[in-house]
Amino acid sequence: MAESWSFLDAFEPNFRPLVVIELAKGTKEETLKWFTKRIVDKKANGGAQLLVKPLVTESGDENIYLVGASHLRLLLGAETVGLVKECNDNSMRTFTYSSRKTFKDFADDNHNFLTMAECQYIVKHELENLRAKDEKMIPGYPQAKLYPGKSIVRRLLTSGILVQIFPLHDREELKKLRQSWYGRVKVGYQPLDEIRCYFGETIALYFGFLEYFTFALIPMAVIGIPYYVFAWEDYDKYVMFATFNLLWSTVILEVWKRICAIMTYRWGTLLMKRQFEEPRSGFHGVLGINPVTGREEPVYSSIKRQIRIYLVSLPFVCLCLYFSLYVMMIYFDLEQWALDYHEENESNFSNLMLFVPSIIYAVVIEIMNRIYRYAAEFLTSWENHRLESSYQNHLILKVLVFNFLNCFASLFYIAFVLFDMKLLRQSLATLLITSQILNQFAESLLPYWLQKRHKKRTKKRISSLKTDTDLSLVEQVNLEKEMGTYFGTFDDYLELFLQFGYVSLFSCVYPLAAVFAVLNNITEIYSDALKMCRVYKRPFAEPTANIGVWQLAFETMSVISVVTNCMLIGMSPQVNALFPDSKMDLILTVALVEHLLLAIKFIMAFVIPDKPRDIQIKLARLEFESLEALKQQKWSRELEVLADSSVLLTHQCM
Amino acid sequence: MAESWSFLDAFEPNFRPLVVIELAKGTKEETLKWFTKRIVDKKANGGAQLLVKPLVTESGDENIYLVGASHLRLLLGAETVGLVKECNDNSMRTFTYSSRKTFKDFADDNHNFLTMAECQYIVKHELENLRAKDEKMIPGYPQAKLYPGKSIVRRLLTSGILVQIFPLHDREELKKLRQSWYGRVKVGYQPLDEIRCYFGETIALYFGFLEYFTFALIPMAVIGIPYYVFAWEDYDKYVMFATFNLLWSTVILEVWKRICAIMTYRWGTLLMKRQFEEPRSGFHGVLGINPVTGREEPVYSSIKRQIRIYLVSLPFVCLCLYFSLYVMMIYFDLEQWALDYHEENESNFSNLMLFVPSIIYAVVIEIMNRIYRYAAEFLTSWENHRLESSYQNHLILKVLVFNFLNCFASLFYIAFVLFDMKLLRQSLATLLITSQILNQFAESLLPYWLQKRHKKRTKKRISSLKTDTDLSLVEQVNLEKEMGTYFGTFDDYLELFLQFGYVSLFSCVYPLAAVFAVLNNITEIYSDALKMCRVYKRPFAEPTANIGVWQLAFETMSVISVVTNCMLIGMSPQVNALFPDSKMDLILTVALVEHLLLAIKFIMAFVIPDKPRDIQIKLARLEFESLEALKQQKWSRELEVLADSSVLLTHQCM
Repeated sequence: MAESWSFLDAFEPNFRPLVVIELAKGTKEETLKWFTKRIVDKKANGGAQLLVKPLVTESGDENIYLVGASHLRLLLGAETVGLVKECNDNSMRTFTYSSRKTFKDFADDNHNFLTMAECQYIVKHELENLRAKDEKMIPGYPQAKLYPGKSIVRRLLTSGILVQIFPLHDREELKKLRQSWYGRVKVGYQPLDEIRCYFGETIALYFGFLEYFTFALIPMAVIGIPYYVFAWEDYDKYVMFATFNLLWSTVILEVWKRICAIMTYRWGTLLMKRQFEEPRSGFHGVLGINPVTGREEPVYSSIKRQIRIYLVSLPFVCLCLYFSLYVMMIYFDLEQWALDYHEENESNFSNLMLFVPSIIYAVVIEIMNRIYRYAAEFLTSWENHRLESSYQNHLILKVLVFNFLNCFASLFYIAFVLFDMKLLRQSLATLLITSQILNQFAESLLPYWLQKRHKKRTKKRISSLKTDTDLSLVEQVNLEKEMGTYFGTFDDYLELFLQFGYVSLFSCVYPLAAVFAVLNNITEIYSDALKMCRVYKRPFAEPTANIGVWQLAFETMSVISVVTNCMLIGMSPQVNALFPDSKMDLILTVALVEHLLLAIKFIMAFVIPDKPRDIQIKLARLEFESLEALKQQKWSRELEVLADSSVLLTHQCM
Repeated sequence: MAESWSFLDAFEPNFRPLVVIELAKGTKEETLKWFTKRIVDKKANGGAQLLVKPLVTESGDENIYLVGASHLRLLLGAETVGLVKECNDNSMRTFTYSSRKTFKDFADDNHNFLTMAECQYIVKHELENLRAKDEKMIPGYPQAKLYPGKSIVRRLLTSGILVQIFPLHDREELKKLRQSWYGRVKVGYQPLDEIRCYFGETIALYFGFLEYFTFALIPMAVIGIPYYVFAWEDYDKYVMFATFNLLWSTVILEVWKRICAIMTYRWGTLLMKRQFEEPRSGFHGVLGINPVTGREEPVYSSIKRQIRIYLVSLPFVCLCLYFSLYVMMIYFDLEQWALDYHEENESNFSNLMLFVPSIIYAVVIEIMNRIYRYAAEFLTSWENHRLESSYQNHLILKVLVFNFLNCFASLFYIAFVLFDMKLLRQSLATLLITSQILNQFAESLLPYWLQKRHKKRTKKRISSLKTDTDLSLVEQVNLEKEMGTYFGTFDDYLELFLQFGYVSLFSCVYPLAAVFAVLNNITEIYSDALKMCRVYKRPFAEPTANIGVWQLAFETMSVISVVTNCMLIGMSPQVNALFPDSKMDLILTVALVEHLLLAIKFIMAFVIPDKPRDIQIKLARLEFESLEALKQQKWSRELEVLADSSVLLTHQCM
């Protein structure tokens, strides 16, 4: 039963499972044979040269496979994916098998040179790069067409034969990580390097950003507290707070780039070369010639995509925005109604009722955001983008615009149409706090509870048939395959983005927002950590060098907040009292200050270098070395040619 | 006398002089011998392997040398500098000697495969990369210290032994170029590709930008004329003009990036790899270890430089700015005086007198700009920047800030402090036209006249001793070495930058500015062409892929012009009449429009791709090919290792 197809199996007695492949139940024998053969086959035959072992389940079905790889294979894979590791001289270099001895902690018998997350990333990369050779279709499934160069795994996924591929947890490592991450109650930094080793760079970078952002908010929160406690309403204090806020938000975003560079340099991803991007798995089209690769692959006309974007998606987004504004107007009606009710029959209950519309609206906003999210995903997927990055960018743009309007439109309306600062403060507080509570609940606690209930049930079922010695692995795989899938850091960043909006857009009206943000983020770190360790399947590590488009989103938000804060300050009665004779002077002054602040912001962003000096020097040194190596290569070739030619010329002359 | 040190001389009967080296008169024989030996010496011995011939002058002095190179040497040099040429399949690739047959127009006997400008660039690169080996000083000059790796040519230049290095003109080619460039009166494009072949990419790109900018101004000029002719003063027409202007200026700057990409792709510089930047020749410091290269070379503490920048240069620039404002105030006194005089004794003469202050001020501005330019160069050089690029950036920043204030401060003062639109229009016109006339005169006509006078004298002198057959070459070298040196495109771009300011900052007040700019630029093209071909020494070609920091400068100017134009429109009586009741509404509307325009500007700049789609595809294809090649290389290495290892493992098992 426990048959294995690995050709190297004899030499690898301690097979270490890295990745789980779950195929659909009842997949044809022929397909199973072909697929596993391709996985273990030699590189020279177009295989992945990995190790495969079927998982023995209680039902006896052979639809779950464990994939591993020999140590040597992993090292070679690390070279293929271009991993960057630390050398003995503390510099970071792209790993190559031939130069393996120069790397720190490398030893032929040290199987921990590559972290488990890196090994899993390598296995995933090798599996995804299993490409069809002369197969016209997947054996056993004539409708699942293949063409030369098509990724087999992607085709298996899209045709439903392959249910999922996911990396296994390492229970011991996970326990250690949990301990140091959120096990003890302690004040201090997160173990980012360990998170990176376990979950990869993308997730570690998110937690790094979350932590950094929380620390960066603390000064704002500290300065904000006395405004609340002493009820400072002097204009000069507000102006000071807002100015500090604006410059601070610029500084923290610039400094983040530097910190991010330091971290990703240490992790090696800052130096990793970009891999050529393959079409995303959902992409479809008629077979044609890709102008870049010259390969036969599905092509989809860019004009058709533009038509879908501008004639369907754009109107749909506008409609949603309109609907969101419509809901907002209903909220204001409700608010008015609650106010009237409160005035008519003043009581404790009616006082409480004043908050109800805001809370309802906050809940509705969250629901709308979530529904819209699905619509946006569907639409963007229907737009049929060829590359995952282009898909992501269009999705993020759609979601950001809607969420921004949905969350902040009512606040803008209250501030700049109703001019009601009291209501603004109240709405802001209600929206911020409600959305934070909802998020924490929906994101972590609910899945955690569901997961726990499910786990109990599964455990009971499994423990009833203790027959195999390997049970704990079977148990683990069965538990993990039922866990939810973590769909990336999108939602987490979005939450932070909206929070940043609440904190910075109207900061001078409600300085306490930063305090709530800090409190939320501290629990957020714990609940997100819980979510990663307990609720979801382990995600594949994904190397990344920065937070990408989110940097731009945060920077845009901080520019918008300069405008809103200047307007708010200009509208405050204290500032108005300074210009009793002429409103014009007031507005001109405010406009001047706003332009100055924006100019200072841009100059600061320009002047602060994105990378610290020592990282710059290290990068320059690497570039210099590679240029020197190239030059040396060219020179030696030149010398050869010149030597040959002078011999030639001498011959000719003789 | 006409002794030659070239070791390949026998095989190169038709020595083609490319570059002229002028050494100081009375340079020691020992130094001459050593230097020429190094130039002709084999690569293997650390030489440049070029050809050298002394120029026989009337005085018999051997202080001028002609440098050439064999065809083969040039091809290898082209590989070293990383030239990109067109292949037979119309793609652009980095030239390598081994793949030479795949390049378009390549034939072993086709000596025109590389343009003369390219050959000269290669020779210059090879000369500059002649590095000291074990020499401790320049032989014969113990005070001219050398250390291993120091560029010999740079040390010779800084110690005054080497007077100059310049490329020779090709009289026939130049004649052809002149003919097609400005020889006949014709309407049409400049022969940019020919200019590029003769003068290199930097200069061709300047002329390309000048031409593009002139064409781009034509729509503005055409729309501007009726405003002048019909004296349109309706606010709606002004608003239309200004709005068109602002969006137009954004579009032209974005489109320029695309056109620039198309041109530089065709020229190959878009793909050229950046070379490692050596310290600039003026850089000095104590010997230390460069942290990037690990080589011994002069180092200069960054803190010392910062101190010089912030404690000396910055205050000096501020002082200059203050002085410039002070001069402006004197101008306004003069203006007032002229007005008073005109009112007292009204006559034709007094009417003319009204223009005198503006003209004097325009002349003073030009003089101040030029004096400041020298001061800025001195200061930036004293700041002791290590890299030429850093030196250039600091210089450009200094000069731009001062020139901006110097040229536009009076206009800002008139517009936003005096609110005198009539005076603004008059000042703008006077400043623009005067500065254009002055520039054309100082830049081209004056040097041309000086050069012509000098040439006549030299010709007379030379023709008095017709002894050598080689005279025409001697004559040419003697003529060219006395010509002025072209110091790069800085002043030309600066002129365009200020012109762009005159046209866009106050465009809605004086729509005719664009007309004058177009007229000026048409003559500018001719006078600049004249300058390049007739007045200056031929400059070395310099590969470049874009106009660099000037793109940013122009974009900043177009952002500032959004602000000024919105303010001007808001101040116009027609717009004021629209809001009779409330100045506040007016200002708020103007501010709103301004922010909208700025937002549209940034979105447009973001949405318009910097490179046309076909260039993007071509670049992606090249990147894909190099990644594939790398992967292939890695794979074949992997296969070897895996094959070896299975043998190994099999052995172990036996």
